[in-house]
Amino acid sequence: MKLYEQLADTLAQRIEQGYFRSGDKLPSIRSLSQEHGVSISTVQEAYRLLEDRGLAQPRPKSGYYVSPRIEVPPLPSTSSTLHKPLRVSRWQQVLHMMSQPEDRNMVYLSVALPNLEAPTLKPLQTILSDLNRRVGLRGLAYDQLHGADELRHQVARLAVDSGCRLAAEEIIVTTGCQEALSTSLRAISQAGDIIAVDSPGFFGSLQAIEANGLQALEIPCHPETGMSLEALELALEQWPVKAILTTPTFNNPAGYCMPDSHKQRLLELARKYDLPIIEDDIYGDLSYSYPRPRTIKSFDQEGRVILCSATSKSIAPGLRVGWVAPGQYLMQVMHMKYVTSMASTTLPQLAVAEFIAQGGYERHLRKMRASYKQNRDRMLEWVARYLPEGTRASRPQGGYLLWVELPQQVDAEQLNERTQARGVSVAPGPLFSASTRFQNCIRINFAPEMNARVERALQIVGEEAQKLIDEVGKAA
Amino acid sequence: MKLYEQLADTLAQRIEQGYFRSGDKLPSIRSLSQEHGVSISTVQEAYRLLEDRGLAQPRPKSGYYVSPRIEVPPLPSTSSTLHKPLRVSRWQQVLHMMSQPEDRNMVYLSVALPNLEAPTLKPLQTILSDLNRRVGLRGLAYDQLHGADELRHQVARLAVDSGCRLAAEEIIVTTGCQEALSTSLRAISQAGDIIAVDSPGFFGSLQAIEANGLQALEIPCHPETGMSLEALELALEQWPVKAILTTPTFNNPAGYCMPDSHKQRLLELARKYDLPIIEDDIYGDLSYSYPRPRTIKSFDQEGRVILCSATSKSIAPGLRVGWVAPGQYLMQVMHMKYVTSMASTTLPQLAVAEFIAQGGYERHLRKMRASYKQNRDRMLEWVARYLPEGTRASRPQGGYLLWVELPQQVDAEQLNERTQARGVSVAPGPLFSASTRFQNCIRINFAPEMNARVERALQIVGEEAQKLIDEVGKAA
Repeated sequence: MKLYEQLADTLAQRIEQGYFRSGDKLPSIRSLSQEHGVSISTVQEAYRLLEDRGLAQPRPKSGYYVSPRIEVPPLPSTSSTLHKPLRVSRWQQVLHMMSQPEDRNMVYLSVALPNLEAPTLKPLQTILSDLNRRVGLRGLAYDQLHGADELRHQVARLAVDSGCRLAAEEIIVTTGCQEALSTSLRAISQAGDIIAVDSPGFFGSLQAIEANGLQALEIPCHPETGMSLEALELALEQWPVKAILTTPTFNNPAGYCMPDSHKQRLLELARKYDLPIIEDDIYGDLSYSYPRPRTIKSFDQEGRVILCSATSKSIAPGLRVGWVAPGQYLMQVMHMKYVTSMASTTLPQLAVAEFIAQGGYERHLRKMRASYKQNRDRMLEWVARYLPEGTRASRPQGGYLLWVELPQQVDAEQLNERTQARGVSVAPGPLFSASTRFQNCIRINFAPEMNARVERALQIVGEEAQKLIDEVGKAA
Repeated sequence: MKLYEQLADTLAQRIEQGYFRSGDKLPSIRSLSQEHGVSISTVQEAYRLLEDRGLAQPRPKSGYYVSPRIEVPPLPSTSSTLHKPLRVSRWQQVLHMMSQPEDRNMVYLSVALPNLEAPTLKPLQTILSDLNRRVGLRGLAYDQLHGADELRHQVARLAVDSGCRLAAEEIIVTTGCQEALSTSLRAISQAGDIIAVDSPGFFGSLQAIEANGLQALEIPCHPETGMSLEALELALEQWPVKAILTTPTFNNPAGYCMPDSHKQRLLELARKYDLPIIEDDIYGDLSYSYPRPRTIKSFDQEGRVILCSATSKSIAPGLRVGWVAPGQYLMQVMHMKYVTSMASTTLPQLAVAEFIAQGGYERHLRKMRASYKQNRDRMLEWVARYLPEGTRASRPQGGYLLWVELPQQVDAEQLNERTQARGVSVAPGPLFSASTRFQNCIRINFAPEMNARVERALQIVGEEAQKLIDEVGKAA
């Protein structure tokens, strides 16, 4: 353990033991340096680590303070046990949400869009502006089918952070994470097959299951540890499941991060039943703590895990730069990628590769992790303050999506209709399920600056939810 | 009929009747203006039209001359009659061709890549360099699922040239034409279904049929008029065909353009059997004559034709800008597009839209049509001169792909192996079929400048083909 890590641990212990309390000023950098006989920069590193862990906060010109403990709503409940494989519906609702015209007056809590106004994206903009001139004809030509080598090398390098050894040759670049998920799914299944999925789970994956004639078997998920391995095992005994599709790290929508031990057990189950796992890691790099959590892929020795990711959530979705590391399914996924769209667009791949190579991506991540974490705390405060009594909410440790369980009387689709009329959209829970679950749940985005406008949006959601509860009360 | 069209027709008649012969100087612009009592610009227009039709050629500072009639090989034979629906194989061969590392010393006659060095692409490069700065955050954000409105409007406007009335709302932007074809195919079929296809036909479509668990029913094609409607009708009577997938305009690889009357009859057949037609029009804009030929879609009143196209062959493939006009299948294709890759990359769409809006696309097309037509004549000359006796070749009226039928003793895959060892690749015929047809055929690209290097490449192909013939002779 390095010196600064030791010092951070010592300080963290004192905070946890109540020696320093919520809001207290922490010792100055100079005094700690003297007390522990370490350099100023070691103390600075230690404080930065505490900040990453959410224990300390800097205040300009004043020093570090213990992060305040805020009033937060309780966690949502574990989703109920599964029934049977189902066809997915609700495409009309998803389409409706995806096709809303851009309206500057709306607050879109419904979307899963990162903050694109971050100053740390400026270098990327510069690259995008200069790149075309620099690469000349290459930008116009077909790229290699598996993607630009520059990008594949950077992706392989970054994978080390998630405990994963990947060679550039094992990676195929895709048009966003959706193409990675969708080609993987089609590569390992045929119409009629059953896919075990997170419940709640990402509607893009669910719709891919539906559009390709597959069936979703929803596995209940715990709000802190993710997919229930007991429920999964029961399901695997009972049904001829073809693959497991999961977002174990900062799940969309539920926010949890499956612990390493669970990730390993999930992999063991997949081995026992000889199944591939499609792992969606698109939010993994947005971990509030560093190093980021490991992927299931990082435990995989057999190439059983198909890792899917993209820069859509960590950088910018409009570039559509994603990738897949398909393990033993490399050839099948390559075939699917070829017939789906051939090579991906050349210039955005080169831009992202350069942004990563220059260190811009890591600087941006560092900034975003801190910013999204602050936003989460603010959003949790507002949920506790403005949403009706009995509301529960997830406690994500990464990403920028909050899963909110409202009192049972609230119908989320009705709620969204009413808040939209007042300029606020939320993502209704039923979109995240093949069954009729999560009717009283919503997903909200906390990526943008948490300003008065967003606070007002939360008030509106709270008011409309309360009205729905009151109406049900009167009708009864 | 306009004045310049009348004049052009008069001149064309005189050429056809032998009044002016191959290589003759045509009357000066001034003398024609006086003779016919029309303006100088009318005569200029008339000559431009004759040039488009391939009848006249300008020589700098000298005037117009009758285009020379060149020695050309006879047309390939009509492909043999169909047998039954087949699974497609040869993915390994396609992958091998797609994955060749860029080697500056190779002459890739095998690829279907346009000439990217055309000066008329300069304005596009300027747009690509400036656009990002101008559109700011929009380049980073998700585009609309159906694509950028600017682009859809330009595509709708251009469709008029092919006799088609399309509203922007009927168009979905895709990641190249391959995504248009592949989402369309999946939207209207299920695993096991039979799709009637051109024989020979584009291997990207054939592989999409294979990867999606479909079967290809190959319909023989005439070298000048395309898909045999008699054979198609027989096939539709005999087999439960689910859809017709065809490239009727400047077919890849066979180069023919189906006449309007055939296009109409094909549509009637589709009506009779109540089938959708997936029409691949990616080469349509590269017609040597103006206006370009009509699409099948332009005759369609019921939304039965799903029109797929892209700028990959007419502008640049690396931008991956394609589109689909799915007619009555709009919703199904939209769903498939969503689950396949969500929205397409934003910046290339906006760049292409601006290039078209500024008139750059039409200027570029005008230049390319003339250039590809000249290249075709040169390539046909070389095929006649260097390839073994008995070689036949297509006579494309648009695009830049030549289909060459070598004497039966030549195995195209063996030929390609041998020419590659000498720095020249060709696309072997069997890739364009689900059966074992076209073993003695190759497809070659005549898009690049027809210089001594390309001429040498043709000599090499000829030498290696002759050796194969001689070897078979000896063995017999």
